[in-house]
Amino acid sequence: MRVAIVGASGYTGFELVRILCRHPAAELTLITSRIQKGRRMDEFYPALRGHCQLTFQEADPDAIAAEAELVFTALPHQAAMDIVPALLERSLKVVDLSADYRFRDAGVYEKWYQLHQTPGLLSQAVYGLPELYRERIRNARLVGNPGCYPTSVILAAAPVVANRLVDRNSIIADSKSGVSGAGRGTSLTVHFCEVNDGFKAYKVGEHRHTPEIEQELSLLAGEAIAVSFTPHLVPMSRGILSTVYLNLLDGVSPADVDRAFESFYRDSPFIRLCGTGDLPSTLQVRGSNYCDIGWRVDRRTGRLVVVAVIDNLTRGASGQAVCNMNLMSGLPEDAGLKDPPWQP
Amino acid sequence: MRVAIVGASGYTGFELVRILCRHPAAELTLITSRIQKGRRMDEFYPALRGHCQLTFQEADPDAIAAEAELVFTALPHQAAMDIVPALLERSLKVVDLSADYRFRDAGVYEKWYQLHQTPGLLSQAVYGLPELYRERIRNARLVGNPGCYPTSVILAAAPVVANRLVDRNSIIADSKSGVSGAGRGTSLTVHFCEVNDGFKAYKVGEHRHTPEIEQELSLLAGEAIAVSFTPHLVPMSRGILSTVYLNLLDGVSPADVDRAFESFYRDSPFIRLCGTGDLPSTLQVRGSNYCDIGWRVDRRTGRLVVVAVIDNLTRGASGQAVCNMNLMSGLPEDAGLKDPPWQP
Amino acid sequence: MRVAIVGASGYTGFELVRILCRHPAAELTLITSRIQKGRRMDEFYPALRGHCQLTFQEADPDAIAAEAELVFTALPHQAAMDIVPALLERSLKVVDLSADYRFRDAGVYEKWYQLHQTPGLLSQAVYGLPELYRERIRNARLVGNPGCYPTSVILAAAPVVANRLVDRNSIIADSKSGVSGAGRGTSLTVHFCEVNDGFKAYKVGEHRHTPEIEQELSLLAGEAIAVSFTPHLVPMSRGILSTVYLNLLDGVSPADVDRAFESFYRDSPFIRLCGTGDLPSTLQVRGSNYCDIGWRVDRRTGRLVVVAVIDNLTRGASGQAVCNMNLMSGLPEDAGLKDPPWQP
Amino acid sequence: MRVAIVGASGYTGFELVRILCRHPAAELTLITSRIQKGRRMDEFYPALRGHCQLTFQEADPDAIAAEAELVFTALPHQAAMDIVPALLERSLKVVDLSADYRFRDAGVYEKWYQLHQTPGLLSQAVYGLPELYRERIRNARLVGNPGCYPTSVILAAAPVVANRLVDRNSIIADSKSGVSGAGRGTSLTVHFCEVNDGFKAYKVGEHRHTPEIEQELSLLAGEAIAVSFTPHLVPMSRGILSTVYLNLLDGVSPADVDRAFESFYRDSPFIRLCGTGDLPSTLQVRGSNYCDIGWRVDRRTGRLVVVAVIDNLTRGASGQAVCNMNLMSGLPEDAGLKDPPWQP
Repeated sequence: MRVAIVGASGYTGFELVRILCRHPAAELTLITSRIQKGRRMDEFYPALRGHCQLTFQEADPDAIAAEAELVFTALPHQAAMDIVPALLERSLKVVDLSADYRFRDAGVYEKWYQLHQTPGLLSQAVYGLPELYRERIRNARLVGNPGCYPTSVILAAAPVVANRLVDRNSIIADSKSGVSGAGRGTSLTVHFCEVNDGFKAYKVGEHRHTPEIEQELSLLAGEAIAVSFTPHLVPMSRGILSTVYLNLLDGVSPADVDRAFESFYRDSPFIRLCGTGDLPSTLQVRGSNYCDIGWRVDRRTGRLVVVAVIDNLTRGASGQAVCNMNLMSGLPEDAGLKDPPWQP
Repeated sequence: MRVAIVGASGYTGFELVRILCRHPAAELTLITSRIQKGRRMDEFYPALRGHCQLTFQEADPDAIAAEAELVFTALPHQAAMDIVPALLERSLKVVDLSADYRFRDAGVYEKWYQLHQTPGLLSQAVYGLPELYRERIRNARLVGNPGCYPTSVILAAAPVVANRLVDRNSIIADSKSGVSGAGRGTSLTVHFCEVNDGFKAYKVGEHRHTPEIEQELSLLAGEAIAVSFTPHLVPMSRGILSTVYLNLLDGVSPADVDRAFESFYRDSPFIRLCGTGDLPSTLQVRGSNYCDIGWRVDRRTGRLVVVAVIDNLTRGASGQAVCNMNLMSGLPEDAGLKDPPWQP
Repeated sequence: MRVAIVGASGYTGFELVRILCRHPAAELTLITSRIQKGRRMDEFYPALRGHCQLTFQEADPDAIAAEAELVFTALPHQAAMDIVPALLERSLKVVDLSADYRFRDAGVYEKWYQLHQTPGLLSQAVYGLPELYRERIRNARLVGNPGCYPTSVILAAAPVVANRLVDRNSIIADSKSGVSGAGRGTSLTVHFCEVNDGFKAYKVGEHRHTPEIEQELSLLAGEAIAVSFTPHLVPMSRGILSTVYLNLLDGVSPADVDRAFESFYRDSPFIRLCGTGDLPSTLQVRGSNYCDIGWRVDRRTGRLVVVAVIDNLTRGASGQAVCNMNLMSGLPEDAGLKDPPWQP
Repeated sequence: MRVAIVGASGYTGFELVRILCRHPAAELTLITSRIQKGRRMDEFYPALRGHCQLTFQEADPDAIAAEAELVFTALPHQAAMDIVPALLERSLKVVDLSADYRFRDAGVYEKWYQLHQTPGLLSQAVYGLPELYRERIRNARLVGNPGCYPTSVILAAAPVVANRLVDRNSIIADSKSGVSGAGRGTSLTVHFCEVNDGFKAYKVGEHRHTPEIEQELSLLAGEAIAVSFTPHLVPMSRGILSTVYLNLLDGVSPADVDRAFESFYRDSPFIRLCGTGDLPSTLQVRGSNYCDIGWRVDRRTGRLVVVAVIDNLTRGASGQAVCNMNLMSGLPEDAGLKDPPWQP
């Protein structure tokens, strides 16, 4: 399988290259970057010397179609819409890492982002969360790869929402992310001296990942769900931890909750359930495609607290994209994604 | 004013010495430590060379009474109860940094901690949060200095709870602390390689600071309040950020919330209101006694989200203790606490 | 004493404000910033709310002369030369934090930097290292405040160089700095994810602080000295540690070395000698004007290894600048600089 | 190939498991730990869930011989000597990660460590630095795996020492290590709050890795070499950077130096030469077995400065051990070690 990456110079691009250059069934044949055009990947990332000799190209759909069968588009939203239709027209399969093909309803996208240029494509795009849409992804030509925060929050809440164990109006997701989630661009926000020993919340009540979480939880519940979502920036490079609070409906027992998690994730190789009371750290999934989930029922308040951890660059972006590629190509879900996490 | 510190070898002890050695009206005359007895403070903490020549003593109440008028007890709970009564008997004023004198009801203490040896003292102890009990602290002989997490959570929620703007059953406090909150003792939990690039929750639904938060919010509301409280460990040395979620009662407007904060903290020199939408970072209060508070009403969900930041060692422990000493001694509330925060 | 800061928006500007707003004898009356003009300092740095209400002005020499008697110029080199002469003409005293007035020989400056516009001023400028030039600084109108690396290296080597205990051709300074030394500007170099868990050397053999170190060591030795100087970037915010290697001349004993340090720094309040074998950490001087120095004679190789630590923003820039202001104004050397270091 | 790890509970043990559980030709069959005996590896390191189901055993030579053909001993020095002879007697091959079998001369070992119990084995042990002893390692039954610091320093200096381009009395190695080098044991030294924003030197002139560096450089030079070696602790988890200073002999040109590096490492898959002036960061080798080397000739002082970076746990310990296993087993040198480094 020959694959290409459009927009390969950022951290998600690096992570895609890192995974693909060791993938047993995929061959990376072409990478593009508007800004780094003409430069070699391993010059830009010396870590990759000996692993990737490709040079950044201009993103030309015909040239891509000549070199690849599947394309990862790792571009900002809007820029993705500018090229994805042309790639699909050339019979390429696409895993898009932007927000442009994650929504079923163009209206929701347009409320939180901007005008959608190709709303007609939304109906054939599949939301690329394998635990929810494994079968549909296998047949998809276009996958909208989930956002990093939504991946962690949806995976934390899905079992109890789908099983209707919780009050759908009570869901609060308090999420914390490492700095690589902000990308490799430079700004005061990612300046080491502003981050180190600093912890802060941002975009409270207005982060664009909110409607993505709500879309999927509403579909699972079969009714509209609004969530409170608060992202925070942690002084670390990789990792997301989401603490999700949900009020249990009357009569729901801790054992009901345990059963919901166990049955929902029975056949999911990348979910590791820590069970009740054993809470995961971001460190135990770093560099891997795992989502580790722990939970605890607080009887005093009648609330369920679920803690999910992922690596924001791997499971929250590029690892999940490769997993989607695997499914779209008839490969085992975990092909190229079997390495253990990095610790310490 | 001559003051002593019992249990001065930990980080809160260091922080007390740091503040007191520059205090305009207090003189530190005696420090104790069971383990470091006989060693000089500035040998143990080279940072203090030139600032503190004291040698750690045994904690003998008579010796302390001969050297000081007020004592900070910076001991683990239980150990505080072992010495505080003897200090009070010798007419010393006491600011106790443990949990032993924070509770009004010995039963609550005993449920979450252990048997209380001196329940009779609880009625004369004042909870040392100046924004709530300024006048009572001025006349107190014994102050129970608040816990670090409760300081941030109570200050975040007090204005809207006291003004009955929120559903008292809806309160969730998601708190994040730097590692110094775990003290200077050694363990795998504070090993650099286990903390760095790792973020985790702990003691979900069972942390001992929960009843302290509930006691004070219940008193403010005039009715029993249970809260969900989740502490997390952040890879940084100092700082606590608490994100507090509260459901607004019907008809409460954002302006009502703003007014509640502004009037509640009108005369509080250590509260800095960031106002609505401007959210503080732990970095902007580091090394100071400030609590900076920002908030935002999320109209979609009807929730208020309040973010409060403090330095866990200063405002969350030793700075607040000095502030209490100031009030107990007729000094200005901010004596010795006027330095700006440390950045970066 | 009314003072102004020209170029106050960077980290050294922040640090000057932090120190001056608590200084017992100086009043900060005016701050300038070309880019932040019109904005309030405490808006730009929320940490300073309640401490500095000044608004950034344009840097106009007449306006400055109307408001201040002494000016700190915290500008990049070249920009300093553009305004310092105008300030001196208006009878203002100047402490310049750039490299523009650190060199005795314009030729050296021009070799490592660029054309010097006001070489005539160099003869009246004093190199602002109080341990070397305390008396001359007292009478200076213009002080060239030392670079951060040179401060640590010169203080480490001065006693044994001045006493001719070491081979002048053998000096190697291996220095390590926190990230704040790179300033508050944004770039990939200071991106959290490029710094965190990354350690690197830069500008080996060509860093501009080299000639500054050589100038001062040569003056102390009475003969020309060339040093090897290698700076490194450490994943931390503040602090410089310099490890300096010097070959001892035949017959020099460890006791000779000890004596040299002790007598050289006898009356220097900001030097704390750790003595032989007790090596300082950057943490023990953070936020202070101290330089802590430890050393060890390695008999196997005949080398002396000296380790000096400073806070790059305080002793390496703004604290030292205030110390120079104190001396130029007849104040005690440590006025406003008496706070203990910050730990942890 | 069935392999066992004796002493698998520390960071080097984790790293061995991490690499071996994905190795194409080795099967990990047994792990031991005195303290964690009876516990599962993936309980102790949740990161390994799904990757290693082994339970820590007692270290019994017969049981090990029944399960494995090659053993990694990852024990403290002394403890290694206690078991290695019994393993060799049972015809097992051994890669020992302690210092016990790194020295040719028992006298040197005894001067820096303690009495050697099995000096007779030293003559058959091979120093496991593949770039120097590739052929001898292939035939070895016992390999003394190099120390982390020596690996970086020897690889930095070997080409110019072996080619006699430098003054053998001039060598200074200034090394900086991440905290994982101190192991997973708890102590104040590795407490997050003592490390974070702290940088320090330790054991100046007396670190036990000194004689190991000297042994190998002396063998390369054909004459006795003494080096000055100073280790430092960096606030990061993984990585070592060594800055090595060497005086060039008269007449040696920069091109001579370049040629020495290029020819010396011609066939070494794990050496990546950055060339002159392009200096590597520890981040670009993290998690890999690479040693990246850059250098610069400083004409002003006649010195060569070489900068080498490795991951202390991978190349500095477990990765190198696996590389030695590969050579001892007739496998390609890089089997199981082909993954690109981790960034960010």
